[in-house]
Amino acid sequence: MSSTRQDRLALSLVVEPGDPRLRDLLLDLEPGAIVAAVRGRHARGQPRVPEAWSERGHDLDRTVETARARAAAGGLRWLCPGDHGWPGALSDLDHVEPLHGATGAPLGLWVRGKSNLAALSQTSVAIVGARECTTYGAECASELAIDCADAGYTVISGAAYGVDGCAHRGAVMMGSPTVAVLACGADIDYPLSHGALLARIAEDGLVVSEQAPGQRPMKGRFLSRNRLIAALTQGTVVIEAASRSGSLNTLSWADQLGRTTMGLPGPVTSRQSTGVHAALRGGKAVLVTSGKDVVEEMRGLGADSADEAPLLLTDFDRLPPTAQKALDGLDWSEPRSASEVAVVAHLSARQVGPALALLERRALASRIGSGWLLSRRADVG
Amino acid sequence: MSSTRQDRLALSLVVEPGDPRLRDLLLDLEPGAIVAAVRGRHARGQPRVPEAWSERGHDLDRTVETARARAAAGGLRWLCPGDHGWPGALSDLDHVEPLHGATGAPLGLWVRGKSNLAALSQTSVAIVGARECTTYGAECASELAIDCADAGYTVISGAAYGVDGCAHRGAVMMGSPTVAVLACGADIDYPLSHGALLARIAEDGLVVSEQAPGQRPMKGRFLSRNRLIAALTQGTVVIEAASRSGSLNTLSWADQLGRTTMGLPGPVTSRQSTGVHAALRGGKAVLVTSGKDVVEEMRGLGADSADEAPLLLTDFDRLPPTAQKALDGLDWSEPRSASEVAVVAHLSARQVGPALALLERRALASRIGSGWLLSRRADVG
Repeated sequence: MSSTRQDRLALSLVVEPGDPRLRDLLLDLEPGAIVAAVRGRHARGQPRVPEAWSERGHDLDRTVETARARAAAGGLRWLCPGDHGWPGALSDLDHVEPLHGATGAPLGLWVRGKSNLAALSQTSVAIVGARECTTYGAECASELAIDCADAGYTVISGAAYGVDGCAHRGAVMMGSPTVAVLACGADIDYPLSHGALLARIAEDGLVVSEQAPGQRPMKGRFLSRNRLIAALTQGTVVIEAASRSGSLNTLSWADQLGRTTMGLPGPVTSRQSTGVHAALRGGKAVLVTSGKDVVEEMRGLGADSADEAPLLLTDFDRLPPTAQKALDGLDWSEPRSASEVAVVAHLSARQVGPALALLERRALASRIGSGWLLSRRADVG
Repeated sequence: MSSTRQDRLALSLVVEPGDPRLRDLLLDLEPGAIVAAVRGRHARGQPRVPEAWSERGHDLDRTVETARARAAAGGLRWLCPGDHGWPGALSDLDHVEPLHGATGAPLGLWVRGKSNLAALSQTSVAIVGARECTTYGAECASELAIDCADAGYTVISGAAYGVDGCAHRGAVMMGSPTVAVLACGADIDYPLSHGALLARIAEDGLVVSEQAPGQRPMKGRFLSRNRLIAALTQGTVVIEAASRSGSLNTLSWADQLGRTTMGLPGPVTSRQSTGVHAALRGGKAVLVTSGKDVVEEMRGLGADSADEAPLLLTDFDRLPPTAQKALDGLDWSEPRSASEVAVVAHLSARQVGPALALLERRALASRIGSGWLLSRRADVG
């Protein structure tokens, strides 16, 4: 294992996933430097890290060893940036404001299953919703998952009771790989009665988590887990969510990340659809009624149609500050290298790459050889 | 009866309501001049009118007499522009493109009931939907009507089976006046089994129609009737509409007229909600789940919030050509009289008044004494 992979693994065992302080430190430092600080090997100029990290890291080699043993027993592998199969889209999380105190790309993921996460998530959709769904919600979740799987989309969800489980089962029924993102260790069967489902998912698809092997789910962990579901996919559909449902949190993440946000309506007389209707009403999500609608919305994301759609000022306002600056540093006709953009836009060398990549995904910038140009869509004048 | 009122009444008996040719002739001519042409009294410079009008007008005095007798027997009165109680909002129909071959403000309306139509329609909402509604649709229509009536809105609908009837009954239950707009004569009980309901509606509210007394409903008349429902109200809600439902036609009218367009969702598994969902998905309507939502949307129409909302270019594109020209004839700082605007904007004296009134309703122009100014919201630069 390379030293960076080791450093990431070690660091993931002392920092609660989604801690925004980690994201901020990683802007300027390599994981190895933070691990060194956690180990208490403060050299001159080394960063200060939160006390809690140092406490958790007091016998870090042993903690790493335990996690590895547990991972081996559970059939998990460590996947992190730089690895084949690492989904680059997760770095979008480094550019969004915290929600409920969590943000940032994960240091890595523990993975159960042999499939390639980057390949599976390349064309994927999140289907999430109420644990206590009605039979209507369960039926819609299965149908939607079946149609999306049939259209070649990987269904990604949280393996919970209700809508999540039905979505995974719909994909499994179609013989399509599906990805479950857990709020506990990827070796834990949670909920317990979904043990067989999780084993089945890991056969053709993947069970993943940023929590260390053996970790139990906790309330905050469901919320930080949701950001991964939103970031891994190109769009999120919510089916049945009461007013304060956690799946609305996944929708907010998708919204912040510029992914397609969708909601499947239900009877207005059903409490389980109130959160979905509120999101649709507030313009936080687009109404979908079928897999066909979902695919249509997702295809709308393609570069072609994005090129034609004018950029609204609100889209610009919703870009993270670094991407806004990078946009200002680009020109219509004269391609600029990333480092030139960094100089013009007053961005650090570490900031400019991800910012340009984000602009490219949103069809606001395009790569010409080793240079970057502003795309036509970015004309907000 | 003034000669203009008489002319309008006579003309209404020879022209099929909504005939766009009438709207065009009325741009330059008084109703009296058209009646004279219909009577065959062609003087030099008098307009040509369609053959069918002349045929229907071959014994016009007698036709008028018959209609009046029938109206008297049915307890109907003739209400037309200039009368106390005439809803000025109907003239918005003179500025929209034909839908299914119909457009234009009605020459007048036959009215059953003593209430003031202008007063009732001042704060009103259309609730329309499927004749063959489900129990869910029926329940939602009643509930919504009850809530809207409770909030002080007059419920206006088409008195059909299903959603329409439930909407009227909800308002009646609340002791609130409601207005039924029929596609047949206002003295005809259609559907027959709604006779008691129509009588009840006429007690506190009104039963109105632009069809002459005694006229039977015909397919095209439902479509042209729908434009009146949309124009009389500040917003239209559709509850249950299959893909080609007539109530989607009412929604299109409301959309063309710049009224608030709303749709109440249902289960995606119900065929009766497919048209509503398609409208919501296509951005033709805003999702509402309750009377509270409806009132919120309708209040959003108020001048205050319109002043804050920026005008989108698409709003400008959707203005009728006369209003677009009038907008060009206005200034930010120097108030202009209607006739000055007419000169600058190359509009006729007859066109400029309604065009300015439309701009005022959409908060794009404001009246300062006898002059007109461009409002801040019209800044599309």
